Order: sequence, then C-alpha cells, then structure tokens
Amino acid sequence: MKTPEEILNECNRDLSYHHDQSVKEKLQELIDYIDDSVDGDGYGNGKYIQEFEEEIADLFGKESAVFMPSGTMAQQISLRIWCDELGTSNVTFHPGSHLEFAEFNAYQKLHNLKRIPLGMPELFENKIATASDFKNIKEKLGVILLEIPQRTIGQLNEWGDLVEISEYAKENNIKLHLDGARIWESQPYYGKSFKEIGELFDSIYVSFYKGLNNFNGAMLMGPKKFIEESKVWQRRHGGNLRTQFPYVISAKMAIEKNLPRIPLYVNKAREIAEILNSHDLIAVTPEVPPTNLFNVIIQAPLEKVKETNLAIADKHKIWLFSLKQAFVDKWSQAEINVGESALDLDLDEFKIIMDEFVQLLKQ
Amino acid sequence: MKTPEEILNECNRDLSYHHDQSVKEKLQELIDYIDDSVDGDGYGNGKYIQEFEEEIADLFGKESAVFMPSGTMAQQISLRIWCDELGTSNVTFHPGSHLEFAEFNAYQKLHNLKRIPLGMPELFENKIATASDFKNIKEKLGVILLEIPQRTIGQLNEWGDLVEISEYAKENNIKLHLDGARIWESQPYYGKSFKEIGELFDSIYVSFYKGLNNFNGAMLMGPKKFIEESKVWQRRHGGNLRTQFPYVISAKMAIEKNLPRIPLYVNKAREIAEILNSHDLIAVTPEVPPTNLFNVIIQAPLEKVKETNLAIADKHKIWLFSLKQAFVDKWSQAEINVGESALDLDLDEFKIIMDEFVQLLKQ
Repeated sequence: MKTPEEILNECNRDLSYHHDQSVKEKLQELIDYIDDSVDGDGYGNGKYIQEFEEEIADLFGKESAVFMPSGTMAQQISLRIWCDELGTSNVTFHPGSHLEFAEFNAYQKLHNLKRIPLGMPELFENKIATASDFKNIKEKLGVILLEIPQRTIGQLNEWGDLVEISEYAKENNIKLHLDGARIWESQPYYGKSFKEIGELFDSIYVSFYKGLNNFNGAMLMGPKKFIEESKVWQRRHGGNLRTQFPYVISAKMAIEKNLPRIPLYVNKAREIAEILNSHDLIAVTPEVPPTNLFNVIIQAPLEKVKETNLAIADKHKIWLFSLKQAFVDKWSQAEINVGESALDLDLDEFKIIMDEFVQLLKQ
Repeated sequence: MKTPEEILNECNRDLSYHHDQSVKEKLQELIDYIDDSVDGDGYGNGKYIQEFEEEIADLFGKESAVFMPSGTMAQQISLRIWCDELGTSNVTFHPGSHLEFAEFNAYQKLHNLKRIPLGMPELFENKIATASDFKNIKEKLGVILLEIPQRTIGQLNEWGDLVEISEYAKENNIKLHLDGARIWESQPYYGKSFKEIGELFDSIYVSFYKGLNNFNGAMLMGPKKFIEESKVWQRRHGGNLRTQFPYVISAKMAIEKNLPRIPLYVNKAREIAEILNSHDLIAVTPEVPPTNLFNVIIQAPLEKVKETNLAIADKHKIWLFSLKQAFVDKWSQAEINVGESALDLDLDEFKIIMDEFVQLLKQ
C-alpha cells in the first residue's frame, strides 16, 4: 500500500498554490529571465535591487522601499520605528495576526511592544476588526496593523471601512501599517489601484512568494526617513544579507509574470468555492471569497476525510485538501489558496470529483 | 580620463577575495553542481538542508546545527540563549568585535544584553583578548565570545591560550562562543582538526561566504536543545525563511570545492606579506600573518596612495589596495584577504609591480 506521502507526490495538480518545480528548474528559470546587465546586490546595494525597490515603491505610491528577507522582520521593524517615533509601545492588530500566532511573540520579546486587545478574542474568531473596533480603544496607540485579507478567516475590510480607519488614524496621530502579505490577491475585490490602496497607509509590507510564487522575500515601503531607519533595524535583525540576488530576481520575475494572473486565481477560487458549497456536507467561508483564499468545513471526522482525500488523490492525481480538525470536534477543515495549479482545472471534472468525494465520505 | 570605478572594473585580478563571476555564472554553477535529488527547503525543513546541517555539525563535533541567513542573527541568538539559561545579561568580547561596530548594537537594542568591557579600548587596538583578560573580569558573566582571528587586527589566540580560556569558562560556568566567521582560514595555523577546535567551545558560528565564497549564509552549532531554541529565535528575528536553497547549495559547494584550498590562501598571504614588508614605506601587521588576513600600513597620505593604486591598476590590471586613512593622519591603510583571485599571482611579477608602486609613491 502507498503511503500518504507517495500518493501526494504522485499528484500533478492541487487546489492550492502553484505547480511544483524542481530546484534545477527554478534556477534555470532565473537564468532564462535575466540578461547580462543584472548585477548581484551586496548588503542591499546594487543597481538591480535598488531599481526594483523603486519600482514597487512607485506601484504603491510610496517614497521609498527596501527589500527584506521576510515579512516577520519587516513588520516588527515597522511597528518599532513608528512606536519609537510616537513614544509609545502600544500597537494593535487582529488576534489572528501572523505576529500573534506565528512569530513566538517576537514583537514582545525583541521589541518590547505591547498589543492592546480589540476585545474578547472569541469576538474575532470569524470577524475582522473594523473602524468601530479601533475607535473603541481607549489607550494611546502607536500603530494599527491591518492585514488584508485577514488570513485566518479570508475576510477583508470593505473599502469605505478602510477609508474610515485611515482617516481615524490620521486624526488621532496613529500610524496605519498594511500587512499586505496577500494584498495582490485583494486588489481585484476593491477594483482600486495599488496606489489608491497605498495612500491609506503610512507603511506597507508586501510578500513575493504567496500568491506571486517567488522564492522568498518581502518589501517594506514608506517615507524615505522611515525606510532609512528600517535599514538600520534590518541590519540589527541580521537581515542585511551579503546578497539577496536570487530572491530579488525571482521577485521581479513574479511581479512581471504572475501579478497579472492574480485576478484569474480569484475568479477560479469563487467558481471552486461555489461547487464545494453545493454539497450538503461541505461549507465554504467566506461563502463568496473576496480573494483566492477561503476555508472549507467538511462535516465529517478528520480521519474519515483524510482517508477520502487520499482515495481521490490516488485515483484522480489531484490533492484537494490539507486537513486539520475543525472547531467542532467531529468536523474537518482545510484552507484553500487558489493559484496556478488549479487554474486549468476543468470545472465539470471537478464537479464529478467532488460528487465522488462526498459519496465516499457518506459510505 | 577613466574614473576610478572604470579602472577597477577593468582589473582582472585582486590581492583580496575571489574571481568575479556574473549573476548568470553563479546560478549556472549551482545548476551544474547539483543533481535532480536536491530538494528545496521549506522554512528550514528538507532533506538537503538537514543533511548539510548534520555534515557541518559533525565536522566540528557538535550535536546539532542550524543554517541561518547571517552571522549577525546567529551570534545574537547564541548570546541570548546562553544568558537566559544562566540568568544574566552580561557578555564580553573584544571591542573590535562585529557585534560592537557593525550591528548598530543590536545585542543591546534587541536583546537587552550588556557587554562587560575587558579594559580600556586603547589596550585592545592592536591586541587580542587572552585568558588573563577574561580572568580579570570581576562580574558574573554569561558568555565569552571569541573571534578567531580577531578580524580588525588579523591576530588569533595561541592554542594553549584557547585551551586555558576554555577551561576557565567551564570551571566558572561561563559559556564560550566561537565567532568563527574566519575559522576556516585559522585552522591551518593551529594544525588541529575542526573537531579539536570545536571541543573548546559551547557554541559555534561559521560563515560560508568570506573565505569560502558562497552566496550568503551561516551555520550555528551546539547542543541539540540549544539549536532547537535557536530555531525559535531565528523565527523571531525573521530568519526562518520560506526557502534558502540557493544559499544552502552554494554553501555545500563551497565546503566541497573551496575549503581544501584555504591553506593555499594562507601560504600565499604570507608570501605576499613578505614582499610588501620588504619595502621601507610599507609595514604589514601581523608581520607573519597567521591566516590569509592582514593589514598594510603605507607611510604616505591617502590621496597619494589612492592615485598610485589607480595608476598601477590601470597599467597592470591588478587591484592592490582598498584604502582608508591610517591611525596616523598622513599614512594610509588597507585590509588584505587573500583568496582565489591572488592565488595564481606570479610573485616575481608582484615584486616588480610593488617596486613600481613604491617608486611612484616617492615621486
């Protein structure tokens, strides 16, 4: 009998993310993309990296930008600089933020920053933070960090709400920082330019590897003075690397080749979500995903759903769900990030596969 | 007239470091080096990266190792973990340490650690810290960080002194950390194995890009529990990257191809130093370099020496010195790191070039 890993490895498509490439293919793609004029950066200096920084800063209408190895680094730095400037250590963000669950509370342990809670965490289990939540905070605040979409629940603030938060922050001398790990995937929902989105924020972090599928890397943007100070903190974090050229080249390639394809992912995500939602044992949230990201609740126990997922994978060579237990013990859950891999999935075939999946589940 | 940059770019050899490669050549070399079995790591997980970590840990006789983006990150993490374990924030190292001059005091700003001075900084301007210096410290110490060689002055502790420091640290429950940025280049002097060197230290950082000439990256080594905790701090620093495969592959290639060549660099450095030292206007320190790294003092004003360096570069296509002003106002100084680039330099030709250099200087 095959192991789950063997079955996964035999799959040639996936509901989430992008086509697998070998390490050799990834490196060859970089070589094919660049011409001989590309210079490798040294400790952040170099023509190619600096032109790319300017390109992304311009895209979001920001004065300056710096390429960093990770968003974890970029966002802590942003919070720290704004808080130092404003003479406070108080920041706030959704309890489902990356800073709260994925970084071992580095903002506290490295930067002595404190998160002012928005209220009982239960209130935010399936709800984003909106203008009224921020206005309810009574303490002096340095920074509001807003993640769009809030990854854990796939929801995002409506445009009018974003504008209201931005105005409130300005009036109250609070800095507004965008956790734009998936802002590329959110832009089609707003139908606004990245510059119009960027205007609402004092500083912005974007990632190049989630929707855009580069190797690794992030960009932090903001006023020139803020970015100059960011470079000091980047060095302190150990992120002013000898060179980052493989990441920079793959990021630039991703912006050119993959950014125009993001609206296709979002459309496909809605079509896939609709088919999933049509089954009585399956619920999708958000029901109509505003981005390419959504969660699937399957009303059956984890072991049973995993087994079904493997049977389908073995037969149809498609990996549907990377599963965990849902909030309700006897149900299962999976996050879907529609990317290149699901783009050429035939929806009629997918309907047949899902009918089979649900039939197997009921056996 | 050519600009200094144009003259530098026309040089095809250099007293320091390695042959220039284009970005395409660097990437192609990786592709040629690997076979199809190499997997790209994901957030530090993967067969290739983990086997490489084990390989380097074994080389130094350590239980465990973790690949990190930079030494700046690795060393702060090491100091922090040992200090937390010992319940102190006191560390000590040479005032010329990378932590003191190149990291914007991150060990203080991020980790609230304090450096206990070894004495007046002037005492250490051309002297490493030895066992007696450490024994003179009266306060409780968490960690002694020892850089071998102390980069700013190119000197290193004698073997017996190292053993004495290691024994003193053990007896007094002080952790001994090796800043091994250039330990590869120091090993020929000791004539000991990396394992014998490693035994003296509780934790070790090594770099892959200085003498070894990989793209970027570092390894932190120590007991298993220490490395597990290091990974937590690596994530906090924003250094647990989506992937590091270009760095890991180039590091492994550097260990295989370039590490065996380090003794050649050290020998060549001594030969070059001897020729430089034979001129009355030039002094080399250390006089007989224990590693491939030494400083050159040229007893002439900076502008004059720069001009002479450019004239020689333009004529002989060799870049001798990257210059700065020496401690004595009217003298000049350059650091030399002998690497691949100087290896095939003909010493008879070099003597002629240096005679010409000194003649020009005297005009």
